[in-house]
This record gives sequence, C-alpha cells and structure tokens, in this order.
Amino acid sequence: MKDNVFIKESERVDDLHRNGYLIIQDPKNFCFGVDAVLLSGFASVKKGEKVIDLGTGTGVIPILMEGRYGGESYYGIDIQEESVEMAQRSIKLNSLENKIKISLCDIKEVFNKFECSSFDVVTSNPPYMNTGGGIINEYSPKAVARHEILCDLDDVVYAAAKLLKFGGRFYMIHRPHRLVDIFYVLRKHKIEPKVIRFIHPYFDRDPSMVLIESSRGGKSMLKVLPPLVIYEKNGEYTEEIYKIYYK
Amino acid sequence: MKDNVFIKESERVDDLHRNGYLIIQDPKNFCFGVDAVLLSGFASVKKGEKVIDLGTGTGVIPILMEGRYGGESYYGIDIQEESVEMAQRSIKLNSLENKIKISLCDIKEVFNKFECSSFDVVTSNPPYMNTGGGIINEYSPKAVARHEILCDLDDVVYAAAKLLKFGGRFYMIHRPHRLVDIFYVLRKHKIEPKVIRFIHPYFDRDPSMVLIESSRGGKSMLKVLPPLVIYEKNGEYTEEIYKIYYK
Repeated sequence: MKDNVFIKESERVDDLHRNGYLIIQDPKNFCFGVDAVLLSGFASVKKGEKVIDLGTGTGVIPILMEGRYGGESYYGIDIQEESVEMAQRSIKLNSLENKIKISLCDIKEVFNKFECSSFDVVTSNPPYMNTGGGIINEYSPKAVARHEILCDLDDVVYAAAKLLKFGGRFYMIHRPHRLVDIFYVLRKHKIEPKVIRFIHPYFDRDPSMVLIESSRGGKSMLKVLPPLVIYEKNGEYTEEIYKIYYK
Repeated sequence: MKDNVFIKESERVDDLHRNGYLIIQDPKNFCFGVDAVLLSGFASVKKGEKVIDLGTGTGVIPILMEGRYGGESYYGIDIQEESVEMAQRSIKLNSLENKIKISLCDIKEVFNKFECSSFDVVTSNPPYMNTGGGIINEYSPKAVARHEILCDLDDVVYAAAKLLKFGGRFYMIHRPHRLVDIFYVLRKHKIEPKVIRFIHPYFDRDPSMVLIESSRGGKSMLKVLPPLVIYEKNGEYTEEIYKIYYK
C-alpha cells in the first residue's frame, strides 16, 4: 500500500481481485455489493471510449471497469462529500489519477460540469427504492445510496440522456419491481432499452436484480438474455458468478 | 363426437386433454400452439367472473380456460369469418353453447357489441410481429394471426382497457423483443403490468415468449416470476410444462 494515502480508523481496504486494485470502504456508511460487480461485468467499454458513472459512491464501478476493459477515461460523480473524498483516495491508492476522476456533483447539475453529448458510456447503480411520497427522516449515507431521497430514476435517466452521445450506451442495475417505471422513463428520455438480464439468487426464485443496457436514439427491439443465477442449489456461487468476480 | 357437428374434409379434431374437450382445427390455416396453452395456464378466472378473449382464432383459449377454471361466462371475438364459424362448431362439439359465445367482430369495433367496463378478465394471444411499415401482400389467416396487419398492439390494449372493469385483469402472451412497447402501451392505457414470466425453450437460452398479467388502474409494482423452461437438456418436456398441459 502506498504510504501517502491516508486510511481512516473506521475504514478498511479490500482487494478487488482485478489488476491488483484495492478499494477503501467505510462499513459504517456503505460498502459496495454484488450489484456493482455484476454491473461492471455486464457493461462494456471499447478502446478510446469515455465513461461516466452517476452516483459513484466508493468509485468501485469505474475502478472495476478500468481494470476489466481499459477505455480512454473515466469520470464519477457523487453528491456525498465524504464518499467523493474517500473514492479519490482509492483512485490514488491504485495510481489511477490519470484515468479516473471523481467529482463532488449533484446529478441534477451535472450539465454545468460536463459537456452534453460527450460520453460514449454512462453507468449507474442508482438508489433502488422509491420513497413513495413518504417522509424519510434519515439522510445517512446508506439511506441516500438506497432510497430516492436526493435524486430519483427520472433524474438519473435524464442526466444519462443528456450526457450520452447519439448511439451511446447506458448501463444500469436496478430492481425488477421497478422495470415498468424504468422502461417508461428510458423511452421518455429517448434512451431505448436494448438488452436486459435478470439476476436470480437461485434458479427457481424470483429475480432480485435486473441489468439493463440502453442506447440513446436506439430503435425498439429488446433482447432478453438467459437468467443469471448467483447460487447453485448447494449455496456455492455458480460458475458464471465466479467468472464475473475473479476472471 | 356429436353427429350434428359438421367437420370439413380439410379439418381435424384434436383432444385438448382437459375435461375431454375437443377442438376443430384446419392445418392449412392456423393451429394453436404452446402459447395458447401457456396463456390459459397463466391466467386465472374466479367463480362468477366474465371473460373475453380478443382475437380468439379457433376458440382454444376460452375452451381451455372454461375447462380449467369454470367461471361465469366466456366470450371470444375474431375478425376472420372462417375462424369464427369453426370455433362456433368446436363450442357446440363440447356442448359449451351456454358458457362460451364466439362472435365475428373487429377489435376496433368491440365497443359496439359489448358494454365498456363490463369484463373481469380479458385474454389475448395477439399477432406478435410488427409490420414495421412494410407492405405485406398476403392476407392469409396465418398472416393475420401472426402479423399486425388488421390490428396492432395499441388496438388490442386499448380494447382491453375499455372492456375491463376497474381492477380487472388482462392476460397476454407476446414476444420478449416487444416488451418495452408492451409496457409503454399498457401504461399509456392505464393498465399496469403486475406480473411477468419469461418462457425459455431451454434454461440457458434466451426466452421465446413472455406472459404478462396487468391490472386496470393498478399501481406500479411488478413481480417477475422465475423462468418457465419448456425442455429439459435431454429434449423432454419439463415437469412444469407437463403439468400445464395435462394436469
């Protein structure tokens, strides 16, 4: 570990099993989950492409994607100052300062910071839970990451639509129970869903997550992939999950 | 077989393996497929409920559903005169004249024949293929059943929305590549998708069909069921498919 990167007492450093990259996390706030790993495996980035991650949290998605795909340059924004500062230290820890830049930015004001129609790829692992008009008293980092408190699905998709070049790709992971909302909002903002894949904990259970690839200005034609199953009957990871994590 | 029901030379009579019911089909036109059987297994009808099938063809869906669920009364409409006449003979063959009524009717004019907001359940196995603005020279019964020549997805969903009572259920089977269109059109007509299930020929292949239950006036909250797989690796029907067909 580089000795010029400070790790706070409440934080821990985890191995990402990808290019030797490490990540700083604070368990009292929010640790990345399987969803971030699956999104980084589902997305794809080609040589020369420019990528932005909306609501990047610890920065895990750009770091994993850089390790997996290369690509020209990565940007990540988040509204939580503490996350941004920590993600910046993770970037430094991996000597990725020239490839990945993390900024403090509200998704609703991303257009003031970045040029419209300038990205090839947008990724997001946004808050899943709609607040449903209820009052949430808690504004903790965990609550902000999980609930649509500071931004909702429409804000995320609108930002993606504005930032993407025509034909650019938007990769998102979300909850299946929101799929109608997701398709509706994507089409409203002229980003057409092109590929989806459901993630089932076990083969014979309802899916717990869904991966969605959309294309700005794409035509109506959806490809639904075979299910991605996390666990075998005996509780071990399936071969495919093992590959996504470690290969 | 009743001797007062005429079977034409080009037709055949098949056993539906449900209450001893039979169906008349004409292989030169259109024979029902696994989609009709799966839709009748996915839908549900309660005691006292009134059901209509839009684009009923041979009448196989109302006949299978009556055999499976009972229900108060079934109606089926189709725009093809030959299908309607043949379906009416199947109804007679099964002595179901008091339970199922099949009428010649254009889906776009269904409101002239049936009262709006009067059905508990609507079913449809509509044409899957959008014509995409291309010219189709063929108006054969097969082409009309498969392609959106005489009605499109919007016509079917609009008719379902008008015919259903508030809270009534719409069951449809369609192709996964149209799922974004389907969700978009359903929500546009205020029938909210509530449950979907993908049908995969084999576990590790893309789904070939999707079952959709929607509710008129329902709230946004989708349940995605585990995959329904047709064949085992060895090419035999899965246990679940066997049950849907024969139990």
